[in-house]
Amino acid sequence: MKIMTLADLQALLQTMGMTRFIEALFDYMQQDFQQWQSFKMTPRHVTHYEHGVMELMPAATDELYAYKFVNGHPGNPNNGDMTVVALGCLAEVSTGYPLMICEMTLLTAFRTAVTSAMASRYLARQDAHVMAMIGTGAQSEFQVLAHQALCGIDTVHYYDIDAAAMDKFEANLSGQGIALHRATTVAEAVAQADIVTTATAAKRHGQVIDEELLRPGMHFNAIGGDCDQKTEFDPGVLSHCKIVIEHLPQTQLEGEMQCGQGSIHAELWELVQQKKPGRVDDNEITLFDSVGVAIEDYATLRCVYQLLNDHAVGSDVALIPPKGCDPKNLFSLMMPA
Amino acid sequence: MKIMTLADLQALLQTMGMTRFIEALFDYMQQDFQQWQSFKMTPRHVTHYEHGVMELMPAATDELYAYKFVNGHPGNPNNGDMTVVALGCLAEVSTGYPLMICEMTLLTAFRTAVTSAMASRYLARQDAHVMAMIGTGAQSEFQVLAHQALCGIDTVHYYDIDAAAMDKFEANLSGQGIALHRATTVAEAVAQADIVTTATAAKRHGQVIDEELLRPGMHFNAIGGDCDQKTEFDPGVLSHCKIVIEHLPQTQLEGEMQCGQGSIHAELWELVQQKKPGRVDDNEITLFDSVGVAIEDYATLRCVYQLLNDHAVGSDVALIPPKGCDPKNLFSLMMPA
Repeated sequence: MKIMTLADLQALLQTMGMTRFIEALFDYMQQDFQQWQSFKMTPRHVTHYEHGVMELMPAATDELYAYKFVNGHPGNPNNGDMTVVALGCLAEVSTGYPLMICEMTLLTAFRTAVTSAMASRYLARQDAHVMAMIGTGAQSEFQVLAHQALCGIDTVHYYDIDAAAMDKFEANLSGQGIALHRATTVAEAVAQADIVTTATAAKRHGQVIDEELLRPGMHFNAIGGDCDQKTEFDPGVLSHCKIVIEHLPQTQLEGEMQCGQGSIHAELWELVQQKKPGRVDDNEITLFDSVGVAIEDYATLRCVYQLLNDHAVGSDVALIPPKGCDPKNLFSLMMPA
Repeated sequence: MKIMTLADLQALLQTMGMTRFIEALFDYMQQDFQQWQSFKMTPRHVTHYEHGVMELMPAATDELYAYKFVNGHPGNPNNGDMTVVALGCLAEVSTGYPLMICEMTLLTAFRTAVTSAMASRYLARQDAHVMAMIGTGAQSEFQVLAHQALCGIDTVHYYDIDAAAMDKFEANLSGQGIALHRATTVAEAVAQADIVTTATAAKRHGQVIDEELLRPGMHFNAIGGDCDQKTEFDPGVLSHCKIVIEHLPQTQLEGEMQCGQGSIHAELWELVQQKKPGRVDDNEITLFDSVGVAIEDYATLRCVYQLLNDHAVGSDVALIPPKGCDPKNLFSLMMPA
């Protein structure tokens, strides 16, 4: 059984480079969206508290079983803690034995960004190269790098109500080969953008994007609507958009469709499998409503497990009884071998 | 964040000794049964395959969140693998951060045995000192040692259809201060027993125990009925017994009550909290129908986490981002500190 700590993930990223890592994740994500129907789909298991949630998100095929254990505590940063931390586990279905346990806080940011960029490949214009990033918080740099690696984005206009968050964003992305333009309003940031990603902490129905900002040909990735009552788009915007979601039962709980506006064109896997078209002309306005589903975590864990083996990163850990123990003598495991 | 591997658990057991470890588990189990109503009770999350199951079993209070990830693959021993392996995780509710990840294969055997012994304390006769162990497989030695430590058992009669399993049982329990008597039939094993634990691999409705074996004053721990269609008792036996279960929704899926016979006297926590009586006279026949519930895993993880700290066992592992990272700069975690 492998263990991948945060330091191991850092080592893997150093070894491979960010672009190759993103490309690998994208390959695995595409593969698993191609086999979407072979997944055992079950709702995540959520334990609610007044101050946060604790979630178990399992996804499984006949080959592998994966789950993510993740929290969401909006008040954590007030105490210097992260809002979200996550760990992941991958197991083989044939025996039920775990294969890997790993850090998944950073990986969740990567998988969300890669899923958005995958949506952009099907929904943004072919010639898209300018992106707007609205909200330069935790997800923002990952969005930009995934779109650079997978969609040819070379220019980013960005806006956040918090100037310090924009400073951080600039510092993190300087030297990455992306032209960075700080905007003073949302409208200024999106004015020239082909692809707009919103990932704000707007409370309730935030209306970060309203109808006046729409131009023909835009593509939106709506990331920040990620819980009950939290949306980022003026409901009126949705009726102008070709909307693609991830998975209806999850989308109905979170995301932009909560308001009951707009109609769903497809789930993203249907575009990947070419069962439905993505963008069909340069004037459509498209929107990907991202909420995050466990299949994306599955793809991520499957990918990372392979990469750990390919690059000899991570450690072997004898957490559970190793294979080859006498299966009829559990008691004997109490004594060191 | 702590990690406790199998080797760490072995070290803890060596350091403390088995009896003190069992006593500690019992203390925590009693405490958590005392606060039973404060748990957020949710069904386990089960993914079914033709050849096995994969389960996530969460349990949480306002203080701690625990889950166990466990499989059940009956065909595994044919390939030299264990039927069940498990890992556990404990997290703090205040922040959502994981506190510990650990081996839980052995711990599950301990918690099942300690729960049975706890039931025996409320349901067996006060003067009980002779036990019968029917089925000397994986659970058997743990049952005996828990009953020795917690119920004063000094003599065990045992039977298994597999002589090799009895040889293993004897070898594992020799020198533990328990008089061991091998029987040639179930009837012979239970003839003098005050407490009978059944933990067989009997398929379907096995009827390991039938009405002819009943004597006034006996207490049964029925362990082996642990999935759909798998029971060990002649349904007629149940109508003679005062039956105590763990948690009705789980008991209805597994355990001896599947047959629709017998009536439930109480859930075990009601005995611990003295809301209902246990045994009231020396002639009652009592039965604890064990299926295993996540609160028992919670108690076990809570206990082990304390013991690791008390005895300086286990390792610190920086699996997830450590506290004190800048919560507003997730991206910065990609670089080594």
